[in-house]
Formats: sequence, structure tokens, C-alpha cells
Amino acid sequence: MATKGSSKTTPLRIIPLGGLGEIGKNMMLFEYENDMIAVDCGLMFPTEDMLGVDLVIPNVSYILDSGKNFRAIFITHGHEDHTGALPYILRQINVPVYCTPLAHGLISVKLKEARLLQSTDLREIRPGDSVTEGPFTVQPFQVAHSIPDSVGYAIRTPVGTCIHTGDFKLDHTPVMGQSTDLARLAQLGDEGVLLLCADSTYAEVPGYTPSEQIVGAAIFQLVAKAKGRVVVTTFASLIARVQLVFDAAEATGRRVFITGRSMIDNVNMALERGYLRAPEGMLVSVRELPSIPHEKLVIITTGSQGEPTSALTRMANQDHPHVKIVEGDTVILSASAVPGNEALVHRTVDNLFKLGAKVLYNRIADVHVRGHAAQEELKIVQSLVRPKYFVPVHGEYRHMVLHAQVAESMNQGTETFILIDGDVLEITKDSASFGEHIDADYVYVDGLGVGDVDHVVLRDRKHLASDGIVVVILPMEKNTSKIAGAVEVVSRGFVDMDEREELIDRTREHVTKKLQSADHTLEWGAVHTEVKETVAKFLYDETRRRPMVLPVRVEV
Amino acid sequence: MATKGSSKTTPLRIIPLGGLGEIGKNMMLFEYENDMIAVDCGLMFPTEDMLGVDLVIPNVSYILDSGKNFRAIFITHGHEDHTGALPYILRQINVPVYCTPLAHGLISVKLKEARLLQSTDLREIRPGDSVTEGPFTVQPFQVAHSIPDSVGYAIRTPVGTCIHTGDFKLDHTPVMGQSTDLARLAQLGDEGVLLLCADSTYAEVPGYTPSEQIVGAAIFQLVAKAKGRVVVTTFASLIARVQLVFDAAEATGRRVFITGRSMIDNVNMALERGYLRAPEGMLVSVRELPSIPHEKLVIITTGSQGEPTSALTRMANQDHPHVKIVEGDTVILSASAVPGNEALVHRTVDNLFKLGAKVLYNRIADVHVRGHAAQEELKIVQSLVRPKYFVPVHGEYRHMVLHAQVAESMNQGTETFILIDGDVLEITKDSASFGEHIDADYVYVDGLGVGDVDHVVLRDRKHLASDGIVVVILPMEKNTSKIAGAVEVVSRGFVDMDEREELIDRTREHVTKKLQSADHTLEWGAVHTEVKETVAKFLYDETRRRPMVLPVRVEV
Repeated sequence: MATKGSSKTTPLRIIPLGGLGEIGKNMMLFEYENDMIAVDCGLMFPTEDMLGVDLVIPNVSYILDSGKNFRAIFITHGHEDHTGALPYILRQINVPVYCTPLAHGLISVKLKEARLLQSTDLREIRPGDSVTEGPFTVQPFQVAHSIPDSVGYAIRTPVGTCIHTGDFKLDHTPVMGQSTDLARLAQLGDEGVLLLCADSTYAEVPGYTPSEQIVGAAIFQLVAKAKGRVVVTTFASLIARVQLVFDAAEATGRRVFITGRSMIDNVNMALERGYLRAPEGMLVSVRELPSIPHEKLVIITTGSQGEPTSALTRMANQDHPHVKIVEGDTVILSASAVPGNEALVHRTVDNLFKLGAKVLYNRIADVHVRGHAAQEELKIVQSLVRPKYFVPVHGEYRHMVLHAQVAESMNQGTETFILIDGDVLEITKDSASFGEHIDADYVYVDGLGVGDVDHVVLRDRKHLASDGIVVVILPMEKNTSKIAGAVEVVSRGFVDMDEREELIDRTREHVTKKLQSADHTLEWGAVHTEVKETVAKFLYDETRRRPMVLPVRVEV
Repeated sequence: MATKGSSKTTPLRIIPLGGLGEIGKNMMLFEYENDMIAVDCGLMFPTEDMLGVDLVIPNVSYILDSGKNFRAIFITHGHEDHTGALPYILRQINVPVYCTPLAHGLISVKLKEARLLQSTDLREIRPGDSVTEGPFTVQPFQVAHSIPDSVGYAIRTPVGTCIHTGDFKLDHTPVMGQSTDLARLAQLGDEGVLLLCADSTYAEVPGYTPSEQIVGAAIFQLVAKAKGRVVVTTFASLIARVQLVFDAAEATGRRVFITGRSMIDNVNMALERGYLRAPEGMLVSVRELPSIPHEKLVIITTGSQGEPTSALTRMANQDHPHVKIVEGDTVILSASAVPGNEALVHRTVDNLFKLGAKVLYNRIADVHVRGHAAQEELKIVQSLVRPKYFVPVHGEYRHMVLHAQVAESMNQGTETFILIDGDVLEITKDSASFGEHIDADYVYVDGLGVGDVDHVVLRDRKHLASDGIVVVILPMEKNTSKIAGAVEVVSRGFVDMDEREELIDRTREHVTKKLQSADHTLEWGAVHTEVKETVAKFLYDETRRRPMVLPVRVEV
């Protein structure tokens, strides 16, 4: 029974910051009275309409402007979309970062590159630990995901217990002993859970996500049957997958060559820290490589997303310094294409086929499983936790809606809220409702610039991309709009300038004639508009294209 | 037993023209001695690296330059990727075009718009017909596909019989009586087939493509259960799907409103020609629409690919003149996203969910089946036809390789060749080998321009898209390289010009200083290069971006 008091009048506030439709994936803020903590601090890769943008990071202006105590960031696991914005955010707000040992290793590398390792208070945390930051007591629990040392968090607050799963799936027979701690979830559920935030990424998929063991069997069989070399690519962070390849190589008497910078770095780090086991002498150096018979070799490489400069893409383009693909090679793409990378991956597969390799990928063989829970797994978590309130997180909007439908289909009386970036959910012991929305617009990173690419710049890039640019240079007398020299017209990305020279000539004549008959007392603003419209119309009539027209005045 | 003679010394030549990895999809040339015919004349939609390009069409310069008799084009069915280049190609080569009745209707509309209907010799052809053009006798046979009146062709040549399947699947229980004529394929196989060209689009998929009836059952159930309006989108050419929706509406006592120009046009055409059956009074006019209760209405609309100006996208953006999506609406996307359109479709789905609609799409319900054969169907065709030679067509390179593997797995002694655009396969009665490759580079259509966008223009667009442009205007004395006024720097798509004004100022100062100290007798070419490199380096150091730098000389 709820009583009147501060716990009723002061709600817990839940606010997702940054990350497109992928709410909460990047950064989820928990606020109570004067204190805040965040779960994760990830980056987004730009969608195709964010031309030239390198990264998208969470918008933390609310935290900065609030004047409240932002106490700590709790990282669920070491993937970029959960950790990648740390170098940007820590420059703005330097707070302790809690993470599991493997995430600690990966984040350290990242912070060292950004020269932030010295100034950052990075703290290890493990399942079973309990950390108190202000009014929040935070307790990690183990979850299965596609990188070891993944956790979810139980967050004890004055209003009640919240659970944030992070990315997870079940998998009762994991390759690296990392299953989701269902017993802990059941315990928390028995105690009573106020709020559950759970991973929606695969809420579209019915049934269960298969165990990593399925992939192990498939890879073993392919390696055993292959008559030549086997080249395997996967995400560099998918340590369990690398272990499966090591195991298959050992069982079939093959040695292993690792290529691609992030794969080499991650494998070395994982071997040093004991996340990977390889028998003595299994790994092949570059120098030894030419002497190993093809039927005795497995190559593990980066490039599962068709990244243009990755080792596998270079092999596919016959451009790798040490590995030339030949007939008899078997290439296994043990990964799925991240949305947006499909075309690059397809090109790599096509090029490998053209070189005569046998290529296996997830559409035609069981060489990959997802790292996220499907519908029946989501239901298991709901049934164990039985939360009062449920906020689906991760995934795009439709995934969150479907996840909410899954939760509602269970008739446990759970109330569901779908939040997007900047939405504020205010929760008391016996009520939950939306507070006032805060500004959490995307922050774009392009090169060194953080936030200096806005929607105007993007709109211009889109315009330039589709029909190019025509620059019209107008030499004018000082203080008048009188043409004082030859008009120059230059274009890029519009038409083949050699083949359509006459079109450029006619544009110059057209605008010159127009200006000669114009009023010379006009302001530059008016001339600018007139030239722009005249040229745009002329070129549209001639070509049905709409290049960007940029009039420039030069005073002579 | 082969005898020496012209049929041995003169090979039949098979040449795919245009269409990226999708060989033969767009246009497949059959050449014997001095005569040629083509199967299909389609267009490709540009891939994402073809910025601003509207369409890609086959390259027919080989036909034009050969001086041979190009006799006719045989169309397999009325889809754009098999007919869409006709308006462009017929302007270059006016030959008879053979097509089935529905394709005839669709092509007529297209040619009328292009003012080519009068000058084109469009001829109807039906399964069972036999047409002789020079040394080729061409006989269409019925195939099942996602548009009625689809055919494949048996092409009798002096060297032997060739079969081109066009796009096909099996489907023994089709919705519109259109199954693939297996008996005819068996007959041809018994007679002996020299060459089979068959659809590879879904060669990745094991098993069978489900029957269109599956979709019928799913749509009926959804319409019957829906409490409010049902909005269904599909490809405008997928007449059988529209019939399923009509049937479901009739059975549940609902009326039907059609919206979206191509859907209205196609439904009207199909009703007139008897491809669609609707009971009297089922269709709703715009005027009647507001008076129909939601639970008595089905809306059929364009927009299955998330096209920005389509009716469904406008509904999702609350911008449709007649239909406002409300809670209680059910929206069915009865189509799959064509590769490259995924992001647009996802955005539409997300927006519909945000408006409170229940949205069903192919990942979460059986509301769509593919129009192409899967592996077990491909095997049935191989086993009936038992060709001497096999050329996989349609689909990207990996699909053709997988299709070849499917054919080879049957051990029928078939020899397989994988062709890409411009490859020439020379076939005699007892041999097949590659001839000299011909030029068949893509031809890009952008607005009114055909072929005036080349790789230079595309490279520029890509450059502009990623980091924008910086124009540097240099007022110079005539005949020298001496600066004769203030240097102007203008940028678009690079940085926020207001926020980074100082950067533009510093760029101007930097280049001015550089030029003041430069040798004034330099040629413009040398100055141009120096300015370009100086500015590029300065901006890269400042921003880590690489905008296009365009120096322009103005003589004063």
C-alpha cells in the first residue's frame, strides 16, 4: 500500500539519451532527486541519410545543464554501441565508469588512444558485486551475449528495483560458460521489480535464438571437410566464435593465422586475459605462413561487414599482402550484415566467388547465430521478473512496439511505456507517467568536429550528392550590381564537363544576358536570388536535374 | 553425332547486356551468323554508390556497331526490370517487340508517355504461339511469377533449342491459374535442349517457395479479425495479390478504396482486361469515402517500398489528403523490401506504429511470398530439361554461382557457364566456350541525360556527399598570376558556416598569404594545384575532413 511521502512525490525519472530509434541503447539515464547515473555510453553508426557523418553520440546537454550530481556510468558490455561514446562524453563530464573485466580491457585501449586513460576513473565490477552511488545501489548479473563478460544491472532505488538487461539472449549451452542468470532474475522477480528495461533487438523473431553450439558444429564440419585453406571472418569482439574456430583447427590438425588489426589486437588481449585458449604453437606468424600447406591452415580475419580496408575485403580484391584467394579455398562469413552494410558484404561475397572460392554465409549455412533474445526468450524474462512497469529498449521503434506486445500478451498486469530519446518517464511506487520531454537531438561527429555538422550541412550534402553543384561567379562593380567582367560558370558532379561544354557556355550566356537587362541598383541579396533561380530553371529545363546553384559575387 | 558444316563452324552466341551482377535480367542477346534477337529490355535501379542516377539501362552499342540484323525483342513479362529500358532502346533501334497481353498493356502506357507508341511495332504473343525471326523460331510457354501473363521462351536455333525461363517460380495452386508449364518443359527436355538460361534470384533459398494461397489465407484472417480499417500495400503490378484482397473484402462484407496513382492505373487496366474480378459496387470513390464506417473498409495503396511520395508514406507522415491513420487501423505490407529500400520501408513501419496502427509485414506474418523459385524448384526444372549447357541468369553473382552448384549437384552431365555483362558464350552442337568479351559498360540515365553521367561525375558526387565543397575565388590580373583583389571562400555541406565563420576567415587568410609569397609568373594550372593542395591540407589539419576544393580564377 502506497503511503504519502517523498517517495511518492519525488519520482524516479528514466530518460533515454541519443541513439535514433534505438532508445536506451546508447545511454539510459536514471535520475532521483538531485542524483543521476547512466547505463552505457555508446555510439551509433550513421544512417545513409547522414552523409559524411562518422559517428552519432548521445546528447548530454540535459545532464550538463541540470546542475545535478551525475555520479557514474555503468557499462553492460564492451561493444561499441554501448561504450564508443565514452571518449567524447568523458571530455564533457568526467565520472567513474564501472565495467566488467573484458569491457575494462577494451575501454582502456579506446581511452588510451584518446589520451583519457590517466584522467578516467575506470572501475572493475563483476556479477555479485554491489556498488552504491548516491541513492542508487547497482548490482550486475550475468547475461549471455555475443561478447564475454556481458551483464545486466539491478538498480535499487528509493522508489523500487529497476532491471536493465543490456543486450542479452538465453543460451543454456554457451560456448564460454556465459548463460543468462535466470535464477537471479527469478529472485529479483520474487522480491518485486518496479521497472524492467529489456533488449528488443530481435523482438520480431518468433521462437528461440539457437545456441552458439550450433555454429560450433557447422564450423567444425566445414573445416573438417575442406580440402584447402579455410578463411573465417567474424566480429573481432566475438571471442566465443574465435574459440570455436581454434577448437575446430585443433581437432583437424590445422594451424591458425590471424590477420586484420582489430582481430589481432582482440585475440592477443583475450589470450593474455584467459578469455581464449589455444594450444602451444597453434598460431602461425607471417614469416611461417608461406610454408604451411593449405590443407593445414585456418585463417581468422576481420572484414565480416565488408569494410573497404579490412583484411577480407583486401583478399576479395586481390590486394592482401599475405593471402591470395585461390580455387580450393573455403571462406566462412560467420556474422550477419549490420543493417546498412548489406551491399558491402554482398560485394565481398561476389568477389570471393569470382576468385573461385567456396563461400559460406549465414543465408546458406548455420555459420552464425544472433546475439539477442527472440520472442520466447523475452517471454521467459517477463514471466520471471513480472515487473510493474516495462520499457522496451534497444532496437528500432517497431521492435519496441512488438516487444511491448509480447509483454502484454502475457497478461501479468505489467504496464508498458515506449520511450524515444528525450522522453522522460516518471515513476513512483504506484504510478508511472510521461514528464516533460527534454532536448536530446543527435550529436554528429565528423572528423574532429563534434556538433558542427547540423541539418543544414546534411541537407546541402544530400543536394550535392544527387545532382552536384554549379558555381556562378559574378564580377561586379563595388557598391552596384553592375557586371564588371566575364561571368564564370564551373560545375562539379553535374554533367560530364567535357561532353556538355556547350551547356555550360549557354548557361553563362543566359545569366549574362539576364543580368545585363537587370536593374543595377538592386541589392546583392536580390541579385543572388535572381541568378540562383534563373540558372536553376534554365538547367532544369535543359536536363531535368536540380544541381545546387551557388552565385558568388567578386568585387572588382 | 555432330557433322562438319556451318552449324559446327558458326556458333550461336549468347551475350548478356547491361544490368550489373544481374546478368541477362535486363537484356540477353542471341546471335547467329548475321542475325540477332533479344530477350527482355529492362532497366536497373541504381545502387547506392550511383548517386543521383535515376536508372541504369543496357548498353546496346555492340548491336548498333555490329551492322547485323537485329530482328526483334521478346519480353517475358511486364515488370520494369524486363521492360523499362524499351523507351530508351527503341529510340536507338526500332524493332518489333513481342509480349503477352498484360505486358502489352503495361508497355503501351510506357511508350505512350514517351511518345513512341505510334512508331513502335508492338506484337501480342501467347503461350502456344510460334514466331520466326530470321534463323530463330521463338515459342513462349507459361510460367508462374508475381505478375500474370508471364512466359519463358523456347528458342529454336540452327544449333539447337535454347530455353530462357524469365522470372519464374512453380506454385501448383496459383491464385490466378498461372502455373509453370512443367509438361512443356518435360517435352522440350525429351526433344533435347542445348542451352538453359534460368532465374537465379532465390538460388540461396533451400526448399520451395510457398504458394500465393498462403498469403490469401493470412490476409483473409487479418481482414476478418480487424476491428477497424485495413490498409494493404503491395506492388502495383501484383494483380494476384490485389485479387486476394478483393476476395477477403467481399467475404467479410467490406468495400475497397484504391489510392496511389500506379495502383489506380493498374487496377483499372486489370479490371478492364479481365485480370481482376470485383463484385459490382465494391469500389469506393473519394466522395463516398468519409461515409464508410472503418470496420467496413479496406484500402489498397501504393508505397510498399516506402517511396517518399507514395500514398502509404504520406499516410505514415500524416500527409495523405483522404486517409488519416488512427488507432484501430491495421496496416498490412504485403511485399518485401527490394534490396536498397530496407531503410525507407522500416521508417514507414516505424511511423505507422507511432500513429498507433497495428502493422503486419513479412518478417512477422505470412503476408508475402516471393515470386522466384527456390532450390528444390530449380532442381525440378533442371531434371525436366536436362540441358547440355546451363547459364544461370538473374540475381547477383553469388546467386548465379549457387544456382550453378544446384545444377551440378544433380549429376546430369550439364556443363555450366557463369556470364557477366559483355561476356560472349559461343555454342556449337558439341562445344561451348567463351568468345572475346565485348564492351557493355553501364549506361546511366539522370533526368533527360542518357550517358552524360560517367564515373567522373559519380566520383565528384561521392566526394561532395561526404564532406561538401569549398570554393576559392581568386581575382587575378590578366596574363599573370598576381592576386588583384580579395580572395573569396565559400563552402556548402562542409561545416556550419555561421558557427565556423572563423575557420572560413582563416582559410582565406591562409591562401592569401600563400599566394602573396608565390611566384607571379606561374601558369594558372600550377596556381590551381597549389591553392587546391594548400587549402585541402589546411582544412584537413583543422577538421580531419576532406571537402572538395575548387579554385576558380576571375580575371579583373
